Amino acid sequence: MAHPEHLDLAARAAELDRADPLHRFTGRFVRAPGVVSYLDGNSLGRPLASFPARVHDFTTYEWGTRLIRRWDESWMAKPYVLGDRIGRSLLGAAPGQTFVGDSTTVLLYKLIRAAVDHRPDRTEIVIDDDNFPTDRFVVEGIAAERGLSIRWIHTDRTIGVQPHQVADAVSEQTAVVVLSHVAYRSGAIADMAAITATAHRVGAYVLWDLCHSIGVIPVRLDECGVDLAVGCSYKYLNGGPGSPAIAYVNASLHRELRQPIWGWMGAADVFAMKDAYEPADDIRRFVSGTPPIFAMLAMESMLELIEAAGIQAIREKSLALTRFTEELLQAYVLPLGATLASPADERVRGSHVTVAHPRFRDILDRLWERGVIPDFRAPDGIRIGLSPLSTTFTEVEVGVRAIGEELQNVLR
Amino acid sequence: MAHPEHLDLAARAAELDRADPLHRFTGRFVRAPGVVSYLDGNSLGRPLASFPARVHDFTTYEWGTRLIRRWDESWMAKPYVLGDRIGRSLLGAAPGQTFVGDSTTVLLYKLIRAAVDHRPDRTEIVIDDDNFPTDRFVVEGIAAERGLSIRWIHTDRTIGVQPHQVADAVSEQTAVVVLSHVAYRSGAIADMAAITATAHRVGAYVLWDLCHSIGVIPVRLDECGVDLAVGCSYKYLNGGPGSPAIAYVNASLHRELRQPIWGWMGAADVFAMKDAYEPADDIRRFVSGTPPIFAMLAMESMLELIEAAGIQAIREKSLALTRFTEELLQAYVLPLGATLASPADERVRGSHVTVAHPRFRDILDRLWERGVIPDFRAPDGIRIGLSPLSTTFTEVEVGVRAIGEELQNVLR
Repeated sequence: MAHPEHLDLAARAAELDRADPLHRFTGRFVRAPGVVSYLDGNSLGRPLASFPARVHDFTTYEWGTRLIRRWDESWMAKPYVLGDRIGRSLLGAAPGQTFVGDSTTVLLYKLIRAAVDHRPDRTEIVIDDDNFPTDRFVVEGIAAERGLSIRWIHTDRTIGVQPHQVADAVSEQTAVVVLSHVAYRSGAIADMAAITATAHRVGAYVLWDLCHSIGVIPVRLDECGVDLAVGCSYKYLNGGPGSPAIAYVNASLHRELRQPIWGWMGAADVFAMKDAYEPADDIRRFVSGTPPIFAMLAMESMLELIEAAGIQAIREKSLALTRFTEELLQAYVLPLGATLASPADERVRGSHVTVAHPRFRDILDRLWERGVIPDFRAPDGIRIGLSPLSTTFTEVEVGVRAIGEELQNVLR
Repeated sequence: MAHPEHLDLAARAAELDRADPLHRFTGRFVRAPGVVSYLDGNSLGRPLASFPARVHDFTTYEWGTRLIRRWDESWMAKPYVLGDRIGRSLLGAAPGQTFVGDSTTVLLYKLIRAAVDHRPDRTEIVIDDDNFPTDRFVVEGIAAERGLSIRWIHTDRTIGVQPHQVADAVSEQTAVVVLSHVAYRSGAIADMAAITATAHRVGAYVLWDLCHSIGVIPVRLDECGVDLAVGCSYKYLNGGPGSPAIAYVNASLHRELRQPIWGWMGAADVFAMKDAYEPADDIRRFVSGTPPIFAMLAMESMLELIEAAGIQAIREKSLALTRFTEELLQAYVLPLGATLASPADERVRGSHVTVAHPRFRDILDRLWERGVIPDFRAPDGIRIGLSPLSTTFTEVEVGVRAIGEELQNVLR
């Protein structure tokens, strides 16, 4: 398959790597022998090579030496200190509105419940049918238990949810609108500012799922007037498998909203061991159990790298990567009958590109054997995730070419 | 203060250490310079010295090299494999009933909600007023949202909740009884078998909080016919600050009960990305979000040590430690007017001993300066936690003697 096109594109990839101002960061991650192209950093980000040393220090000095005293010294504040930092560097959130803890699913439950419980007069939750399963399932469960109905927005998967669709769906009956900022399949970016304003016009709250945005796309929560947001840290924040999630609650709602899982860490005075629960009057009231401190270490290391690179520069590299991916797909994969399942306009495209073909399921094993690891999303999508700080243009060329070759093999 | 009594007791401690069949394990933990007596392993267990190397291996090989493929290879099963192992080695639970995930608070919420939602005809939750704050707060929150009432058992703190009190409290109106197996203040062990049977006689479910039992006291969940149990892993399982919790749901209830936080990891077919939520028909239905794999590593290492020692031998050392602690208190602290706030009968005492004095709050800083670290529980209790695998008799002697000396100093 060494036709001239391939040689040209491989040379272009090398050139892009040489010109990439963030290229130096790609060497900071653990090397994976046998993996020639990792295109799934948006499912599980790679670990930093420096991380084991950080765990060693943490275990020896913070946990092992300070022991229980460390809770007072720094761990009690950690979910909020780290949250504020993520808020400042990545989310456009002023301090005191963001924390780290729980799983995305649990945070979705707590914040959506907080929103609908505060609006007992309203009967509907609005969500789109292309939202991630856990978002839809949480909403389905809450609707069932609170006797609410769900108004589904039927999304064109390739372009994602549009502001006019939200305008059509919301009404004075809407308690909360639950949407993903970047669609998990197509990578389509929703218009956060316009949609939030649309929901607010009818007095509804908006919750944004930021799982595919945090760490790769600059987000402006305060500026957009967002009420609630939730995201995960194991994708572009490289927090490790099952690392804790991130929640944002706009400061204007702290005294209004209450979440249903009352625990000691959300109480006004944690160690008073009082008889009755009295929630803290700030962001802490959205916290329930003991914060997962140890599980925050990896995302904290990655956040340092992200801050060193800067989120704008990361977005620029992300755009260059998705642009090049599209070019590679045009050369290697689309001619075989595959179709682009992501927005064509890069301004509304996140950091992954999805391509569809009915035979893609049949080539996954072969790709893995070759050390090419994209993601597969049922029924027929290969999702090419491009994590800017760890991904080289060269590995994208190698990976997309392999997808083309293996597709050609099964079509023969 | 080097009176003969001290010399005798220090010598006795050294002798007990020499005779201790588990003594070799005490050297396996990270050394803490300046800490001469750590008596708070039941708040935060110490890290194993081998743990950083384990994280290095995990980061390099499992996470860093297998990357996303590791989910299929082992991580998806991990919460249940580790849960089953904890079930078998520590909880007397047959496979398929235990998993690791979420925080204790979130698990309490999910399981208590599952119980009360399945009993819409019943109007009460029974709980004792000495239960840990988070347990009480979760119950308070659930009662508020579900329109249930709480029937409080008023416990004599020193002896803990008694079966006859539960018999008096429960009725045909009781949906669920929520109790701690070992009381967090006094260490009193509740009669799990008798109380569970008492609750079952009126058709109520029972949830046991095992936070102060797991890893230190043999528990027999299946044998006692327990319905639900929850516990944490950062105490005697040394899982690290904020490590995930453990849940048990009796197999007979898997199809009956549903929990309210519907997420993709609890769905019958996780990667089908289906339109509607259909819960798994086994223990997985109690899981919500992505499992906290990385955060399970430390407890897994400790579990190996616990299994090597054996839970019966651990309980025997725990008894020897609490017995010696009582002897030390008699010599150094009780003569100064402090009182024992734990059961006198060691058969119903867990692995910590609490002693009370109105001036204890005033000596904490001094104790910490001396490297003596017990726990303090408001208003006046010093809790001496004895984690058998990491605690020497010598450090207990040093610690309790320091408590006596510092109390004497403030009373002067």
